Amino acid sequence: MTRITRKPVGIIGAGPAGLFLAHLLHRQGIDSIILESRSRADVEGTIRAGVLEQWVVDLMNRMGLGERMMREGHFHSGITLRFHGESHHIDMAELTDGKRVTVYAQHEVIRDLIAARLEDGGEILFGVSDVHLHGIESDTPRITFRRSADAPVEEIACDFIAGCDGFHGPSRQAIPAAVRQEHQIVYPFGWLGILASAPPSHHELIYASHERGFALLSTRSPDVQRLYIQVDPKDDIANWSDARIWSELHSRLEDKSGWSLIEGPVFQKGIIAMRSFVCETMRHGRLFLAGDAAHIVPPTGAKGLNLAVADVLVLAQALTAFLRRGDEDGLNGYSARCLRRIWRAERFSWYMTTMMHLNPNESTFEQRVHMADLDYVVHSRAAMTALAENYVGLPMDIPADLAL
Amino acid sequence: MTRITRKPVGIIGAGPAGLFLAHLLHRQGIDSIILESRSRADVEGTIRAGVLEQWVVDLMNRMGLGERMMREGHFHSGITLRFHGESHHIDMAELTDGKRVTVYAQHEVIRDLIAARLEDGGEILFGVSDVHLHGIESDTPRITFRRSADAPVEEIACDFIAGCDGFHGPSRQAIPAAVRQEHQIVYPFGWLGILASAPPSHHELIYASHERGFALLSTRSPDVQRLYIQVDPKDDIANWSDARIWSELHSRLEDKSGWSLIEGPVFQKGIIAMRSFVCETMRHGRLFLAGDAAHIVPPTGAKGLNLAVADVLVLAQALTAFLRRGDEDGLNGYSARCLRRIWRAERFSWYMTTMMHLNPNESTFEQRVHMADLDYVVHSRAAMTALAENYVGLPMDIPADLAL
Repeated sequence: MTRITRKPVGIIGAGPAGLFLAHLLHRQGIDSIILESRSRADVEGTIRAGVLEQWVVDLMNRMGLGERMMREGHFHSGITLRFHGESHHIDMAELTDGKRVTVYAQHEVIRDLIAARLEDGGEILFGVSDVHLHGIESDTPRITFRRSADAPVEEIACDFIAGCDGFHGPSRQAIPAAVRQEHQIVYPFGWLGILASAPPSHHELIYASHERGFALLSTRSPDVQRLYIQVDPKDDIANWSDARIWSELHSRLEDKSGWSLIEGPVFQKGIIAMRSFVCETMRHGRLFLAGDAAHIVPPTGAKGLNLAVADVLVLAQALTAFLRRGDEDGLNGYSARCLRRIWRAERFSWYMTTMMHLNPNESTFEQRVHMADLDYVVHSRAAMTALAENYVGLPMDIPADLAL
Repeated sequence: MTRITRKPVGIIGAGPAGLFLAHLLHRQGIDSIILESRSRADVEGTIRAGVLEQWVVDLMNRMGLGERMMREGHFHSGITLRFHGESHHIDMAELTDGKRVTVYAQHEVIRDLIAARLEDGGEILFGVSDVHLHGIESDTPRITFRRSADAPVEEIACDFIAGCDGFHGPSRQAIPAAVRQEHQIVYPFGWLGILASAPPSHHELIYASHERGFALLSTRSPDVQRLYIQVDPKDDIANWSDARIWSELHSRLEDKSGWSLIEGPVFQKGIIAMRSFVCETMRHGRLFLAGDAAHIVPPTGAKGLNLAVADVLVLAQALTAFLRRGDEDGLNGYSARCLRRIWRAERFSWYMTTMMHLNPNESTFEQRVHMADLDYVVHSRAAMTALAENYVGLPMDIPADLAL
């Protein structure tokens, strides 16, 4: 006999979307279970950047999940755009009535959310395999899985499935191809990222557009720095000695002011490809996609985590309204409501990405337009405000009645 | 013997750039001559749209050239963006501290400038042919031409040549290809424009983005309206009956409010292709390019005429500084100073064009991004201000000492 567990909501994936959703539902008295194919150590140990919009920080604090973030996160009230050897500071707080972003890595958010969820008695099954979705067009959807590769098949019988399993997970694929419209750009460049043991070279992020390609100076902690350079996404990391990486970083990041980059031992490096992706619809029957399962942004706009939280904030309200009061409007409006914010964030991420990177496939006209865009944005208060309000996060309603 | 005329400045082309330049130089006591290949009737009769930025209107008034414009022009303090059947008003005056645009057709501006120039005793030779530039790398450049096809060759011996002869004129080609960098986008769409005898359907311009393609409602006078629809630039105007044009205009321009388009007899129609183009450098030796000779914008941003005037305002200052005081800085800085403004206008025109048109060569992702851009720009005061400040014209210094 297949072991069957009944839960109102079955959540696939213990990333930010799945974990935030479980917490939000729990505060409404709605039980859920999370299935995660990776181990807890893996999930918590995979180093991922994280720039949190102001409202996400506010939400975490209201949910009682922000204690460590407020202690260990870095609060940035601006960024620097650097091009033609000149630096231009965008004072986001001044431009957006005091909003800031918080640099707090995604895996740290995940650690905090997992610990709090388990403390609340929440169920998260790590290391599961063979996850399949069934009956999503019915009122009784099911998820089958194994607790480990050679364990027996089990089943979650639920009212709703939340597909929070990332770009490569099974949830999106469970929506029939005929009702899915997928929109995508695969960029002809990627980021080579390093982690280095060094003190911060600057107190805020520096986005540099350079004739050799884009570079980004970020930070992780007082002792660890995160830096990126634009490279060919098909390049082999073996071609990149530490010395070559530092040389590129110096060339691309340093300006005419005499500011210079502080080096340190590199203890991690890798190349990531970059894509923009949106799946329309985000809902099919009783399956709701959230986060990277439905959309990918290139990291230039620092929107990935924030969009995932925005999705599940909408989803938690919709599920609550239906499970508590039988109100279907939220469920029916979920996809459209999320997609509006998602497309705005996709637009911003695309804009930042195309403006800052050297794209060998573009005409010289388009390359010049991007330079004109940079020149314009740092000299127009209106354009600078538009950049800032997107960077800190467009307004997001956090309903007062969500028991936060 | 070739007849030789000596003039400090030889101007090729009696469009807005050449005519404004002659007027500006005249006010500095610097003589010039204009050579124009078309007849006066042709130049004055070719119907061209015209949206003048606030500073151009101010400049014309300060130069005593604005009387008819102030009487017959239309002053627009806003535009409407229409998409998804909804209308969104951009109140440019409110967003830009009272700046407006003036709808006053380019050929009307030209008529006023020609009349005033001839009244001042200025020399404009219409209908010349065989125009050639010589010695532009020397201090004694020359222009040869014939007053008519079978007249003898004459020569203008000058200190400087102003190439104001449009995209297809000989001036830009006189710069050696090796020192010219040309940047271009040819759009895969064009505009079918009509002139119709009808009262205005709306008091301001309406820019419509529609799934059938872009449309623009403009105006010419209380009795004549200008309307455009996006079409294939290779399409034949013979395929477009008046009925078919009106049908497209109704579909694309009408919104959910019940507003409707007023039809009238069509008395002119044609299809124009659209391109973005910039030539770097705009100066070679004693030759200075201005206006369409150096750059083309698609009409969506309404920037063409304004850029031409901006160029020659800079050029008049540079020529005056050199011819009066031997100061070469303005001449040496001409190209860079103009190009900065030009690239900003090219960026804006490209942005308006790509955002508003349906481009069959773009991915569905990019098409969705443009819709998100529209949705964002009409809901963000910052983004709306950025659009408005570009539309009414970025700040332009008009020097107090230019004897205006």
